Amino acid sequence: MKLNIAVLPGDGIGPEVTAQAVKVLKAIAINFDHVFTFSNALVGASAIEKFNDPLPEATIETCKSADAILFGAIGKTSYDLDPYAKIRPEQGLLRLRKTLDLHTNIRPVIAYDDLLIKSSLKKTQIKGTNILIYRELTSGIYFGDKYLSEDNNTASDVCKYTREEIERVAHSAFKAAQSRKQKLTLVDKANVLESSRLWRRVVQELAAQYPNVEVNYTYIDNAAMELIINPKQFDVILTENMFGDILSEEASVIVGSIGLLASASIGDNHVMFEPIHGAYTKATNKGIANPIASILSAAMLLEHFGLDDEASLVRDAVEKSLTLHITTPDLNNKYDNITTTKVGDFIEDFINNPD
Amino acid sequence: MKLNIAVLPGDGIGPEVTAQAVKVLKAIAINFDHVFTFSNALVGASAIEKFNDPLPEATIETCKSADAILFGAIGKTSYDLDPYAKIRPEQGLLRLRKTLDLHTNIRPVIAYDDLLIKSSLKKTQIKGTNILIYRELTSGIYFGDKYLSEDNNTASDVCKYTREEIERVAHSAFKAAQSRKQKLTLVDKANVLESSRLWRRVVQELAAQYPNVEVNYTYIDNAAMELIINPKQFDVILTENMFGDILSEEASVIVGSIGLLASASIGDNHVMFEPIHGAYTKATNKGIANPIASILSAAMLLEHFGLDDEASLVRDAVEKSLTLHITTPDLNNKYDNITTTKVGDFIEDFINNPD
Ligand SMILES: [Mg+2]
Ligand SMILES: [Mg+2]
Repeated sequence: MKLNIAVLPGDGIGPEVTAQAVKVLKAIAINFDHVFTFSNALVGASAIEKFNDPLPEATIETCKSADAILFGAIGKTSYDLDPYAKIRPEQGLLRLRKTLDLHTNIRPVIAYDDLLIKSSLKKTQIKGTNILIYRELTSGIYFGDKYLSEDNNTASDVCKYTREEIERVAHSAFKAAQSRKQKLTLVDKANVLESSRLWRRVVQELAAQYPNVEVNYTYIDNAAMELIINPKQFDVILTENMFGDILSEEASVIVGSIGLLASASIGDNHVMFEPIHGAYTKATNKGIANPIASILSAAMLLEHFGLDDEASLVRDAVEKSLTLHITTPDLNNKYDNITTTKVGDFIEDFINNPD
Repeated sequence: MKLNIAVLPGDGIGPEVTAQAVKVLKAIAINFDHVFTFSNALVGASAIEKFNDPLPEATIETCKSADAILFGAIGKTSYDLDPYAKIRPEQGLLRLRKTLDLHTNIRPVIAYDDLLIKSSLKKTQIKGTNILIYRELTSGIYFGDKYLSEDNNTASDVCKYTREEIERVAHSAFKAAQSRKQKLTLVDKANVLESSRLWRRVVQELAAQYPNVEVNYTYIDNAAMELIINPKQFDVILTENMFGDILSEEASVIVGSIGLLASASIGDNHVMFEPIHGAYTKATNKGIANPIASILSAAMLLEHFGLDDEASLVRDAVEKSLTLHITTPDLNNKYDNITTTKVGDFIEDFINNPD
């Protein structure tokens, strides 16, 4: 298969983890006779530095002409500490999602047996957890109208949803549930928010089309608790943009490290794959960034194009690295010299010579 | 001391847990020579059933003329399942908070040694956790303008904050931090939301007035993760209304049961005390509802009026009940016949005859 992949490493640890994912994709291409070409482009703080724009036109063009996008991470401490900054790295990612209409974000949360001990949760609580979070990605409060009064003393954000926006991500989530444990949980705040009540109505209506799927409804505050108390109760979680952001980052404690969580962002015409973690600026270039979330995002990319054997091999390699403690310090208290690159090298080697 | 206390038991398990808190307050009054009078009033679904209004005028009057309000819980499954309902139980609570201007909600999260084993988190992770969450309670997206299009296909909610709204709760949080471990963490989403950037600016400015307080800033998605990974890093958490709702319910996993978390809602002219849990309709009248959150809310009430010895005695009684496993089933796998009332009776007895 020929695939033209846009690579947007971004900021902080983005470039170093993305480099490992590219290395892995190249190994897959060689071993399975595919032709993957890679085109790099700037986004986030690195794009602001060069073009005063977190999402330059050239980057959009590179993404639009690619079959898939591999994204690293964006963000920079100096912007976090300056709430007056008008141009911000995160705008690059948000505008990219919107421009390419990447409306459906899929985040698998899987408890690996080899890592049960790493979690801050008790082993019995998490063993066997396998959740797929469907997060709406191009609407809600992150994209609603923003307002700041002239005197800087009043500010507001609007959380708006339309039926169509809810339906497309909901259909995908229902279909995923059908091929899994036939359970879907909608997370909202319908007892207080009008937009959440729209979510609940739409999902209640769609449920009739998926009679074999058991649908549950829960409030975000309760879900944040239940996700920790009993994660195994969940199969597919469907939720709006911000709630999905919160829940998926929280869910990383089940897996043992946020450095393991991959995601796919699916639109009607474009697809993007990225770790759920951020730029983690203070870890930049120290060799301690975990590349597995990025590598597993590459596996989701392969799977998206029907390359299931290839994706499986990447996942096997990742699991092997976990079993053998070939992991960065966030997961490792056995060896202290396993760098980002070494993890990538191990996974590349495994692909070249599977046991 | 003479205290006129409005009691709003509300719905579901609200009445049964509130009854235990009232019993405890009566025991305190007798043993310490106080005169506490109690005036009951309806709120939530029970008020809708009788007056077609979740917050009848009579209830507001009872609250306004009281020195303090003891609140149970509201909500009913039938409303949760009907996103079209125009009159909803939760409106009663939201309107009450707004009418009485109860802007500052304080939620202690304390890991009791006797309960470390009950948490889904590892003991070492949580032992010693003592967090005070300051949640803004009368603004943000729960109170912003709501919109539903005529065709029911578009809905929105506005999250709006003013400098004044942020300042008053922030000052309280800074003062609390000063008397504790001098650490304050602001939780927001300033990389994306305009209202969060206002929070960050205001808190950055106020920080200059509290030079001995170390201030940290973190995003809500990250905070939802860090709260589980390392809760002991937090002292005082300051945040907006919805984020506080989510984080405090999530924090209940540290304590071992949501049935233990009390809260105080403080305004300039009125004060209200309530458990953070909801009406938990399906547990109603089964004797399984944990009354401790309500009883600890009563302890916060006593403390608010400077009755520190009285509050301490209530807390000692609660801890004794935990040590002796005189607890409802959410915390008990030793005895299976300890009801809501029995827990209340034990705490009442302890107050009458402390060891
Ligand atoms: Mg996030
Ligand atoms: Mg809540």
